[in-house]
Amino acid sequence: MAQRYVRVQTTSSQLYYGILQLNRQVQVLDAPPWLEGQLTDLLIEPDSYRLLAPCVPSKIIAVGKNYAKHAAEMGTEAPKEPLLFLKPSTTLIAMGDPIFYPPQSARVDYEGELALVIGDRCCDCSPETAQNKIWGYTIANDVTARDLQKKDGQWTRAKGFDTFCPLGPWIVRELNPSARLQTFLNDSPKPVQSALISEMTFAPEVLVSYISQVMTLLPGDVVLTGTPEGIGPVQVGDRIRVEIEGIGALENTIAARNAESVAIA
Amino acid sequence: MAQRYVRVQTTSSQLYYGILQLNRQVQVLDAPPWLEGQLTDLLIEPDSYRLLAPCVPSKIIAVGKNYAKHAAEMGTEAPKEPLLFLKPSTTLIAMGDPIFYPPQSARVDYEGELALVIGDRCCDCSPETAQNKIWGYTIANDVTARDLQKKDGQWTRAKGFDTFCPLGPWIVRELNPSARLQTFLNDSPKPVQSALISEMTFAPEVLVSYISQVMTLLPGDVVLTGTPEGIGPVQVGDRIRVEIEGIGALENTIAARNAESVAIA
Repeated sequence: MAQRYVRVQTTSSQLYYGILQLNRQVQVLDAPPWLEGQLTDLLIEPDSYRLLAPCVPSKIIAVGKNYAKHAAEMGTEAPKEPLLFLKPSTTLIAMGDPIFYPPQSARVDYEGELALVIGDRCCDCSPETAQNKIWGYTIANDVTARDLQKKDGQWTRAKGFDTFCPLGPWIVRELNPSARLQTFLNDSPKPVQSALISEMTFAPEVLVSYISQVMTLLPGDVVLTGTPEGIGPVQVGDRIRVEIEGIGALENTIAARNAESVAIA
Repeated sequence: MAQRYVRVQTTSSQLYYGILQLNRQVQVLDAPPWLEGQLTDLLIEPDSYRLLAPCVPSKIIAVGKNYAKHAAEMGTEAPKEPLLFLKPSTTLIAMGDPIFYPPQSARVDYEGELALVIGDRCCDCSPETAQNKIWGYTIANDVTARDLQKKDGQWTRAKGFDTFCPLGPWIVRELNPSARLQTFLNDSPKPVQSALISEMTFAPEVLVSYISQVMTLLPGDVVLTGTPEGIGPVQVGDRIRVEIEGIGALENTIAARNAESVAIA
């Protein structure tokens, strides 16, 4: 199994980067692994930590309509260039954290996606150079208030609510370029989304190159690569699991938002 | 004159928050002032520092078409609710830093704006509470690649290029609600933009309240309140100065972007 890079909070509120062992112990790194973090002697026991989103991005850049069949189900053509938008870092939550359903919306959708974690400053990079700036791969759910997305025109509010970016549970360094992405709703064994990563219109290194010609990417930044067809609504109480072969599964539940409920990663 | 809160980099590369004295010395604070930073005995001489953007936001939230006459000049109606978008933190530059003209665009515009600096965590706040979360006021230029804004639909790329958010030169704590904002191009004494802050459709505390119901605002975050009518293009070599009564003037020049030129705040 591939090495799994995590970020954890211990029961005594310490924050660490580390490597998740098969026995669920976490071996602690002294810095983020993309900043040359080295293994320490510290081991954290399985019942002494919770997983956090596996990196702390200065920005989350996402890409719209990067699978042709999803563009079609939205009633639009696939864009000729990557279509960029941003999610604020306050959207980030971890594996298992609740996604809060905002009262402003009556239609909130899951969107399972492959996420890229940038390891190195990346400015005006070619696709070849950009490939080397991608430190690893994880899973994201680009939660979207579909009604507000249509109403506002700009997608910032619809995709920017607190808790609207589950990310994780860990980062792996290598990915089969034709790995399958699947999204499951509650206990149904039939996926609501199922596509190969290789069906993307713009491949990961093309996206990173394109973005780097606009804004400098920094270590720990995250790129969401778009969702395939099969998006659909969720209700309070629903459980969403996004799986990518070779990475794992990211699962979160939908909860009502109230004054005390808002989480900050 | 109001107290002017700055962030500086010294010639020995130290970063400090401080208060700018009339003699241009900077009296150093031991933390950001909105995080209870206290004055120290350290004074920095005028020739030993340069001004940086006066805060380090985890996010920059901007508002479109918040002056009715600007919405009209864009050929649209003023929105019924604030129209939100985000600028990545890599857009931030300081007073005097060059704005790089990206090769992807043939039409880059200035947009002079009042910027709010958030002092305290702000989630689901009423306008009354939001007013108390606004720690101070500064000046921004929401530089925009107008052609790409129209082409992309989403504004992220058009408003997200490195150097596209000059901010500063300093923060003041109080602002006359009917202060005048003016933008000047090169040596012309006639402003290209001139409006009262009070002409905004949605007032600062209304914007902060609205945003806080979507995404939690954190100390140091920045809200750009929209630009008044009179936007227009700039060329390489142009000098843009945005003035707000009671704050001061933010001046930057336009430079060609090349491989070595990209700045990160």
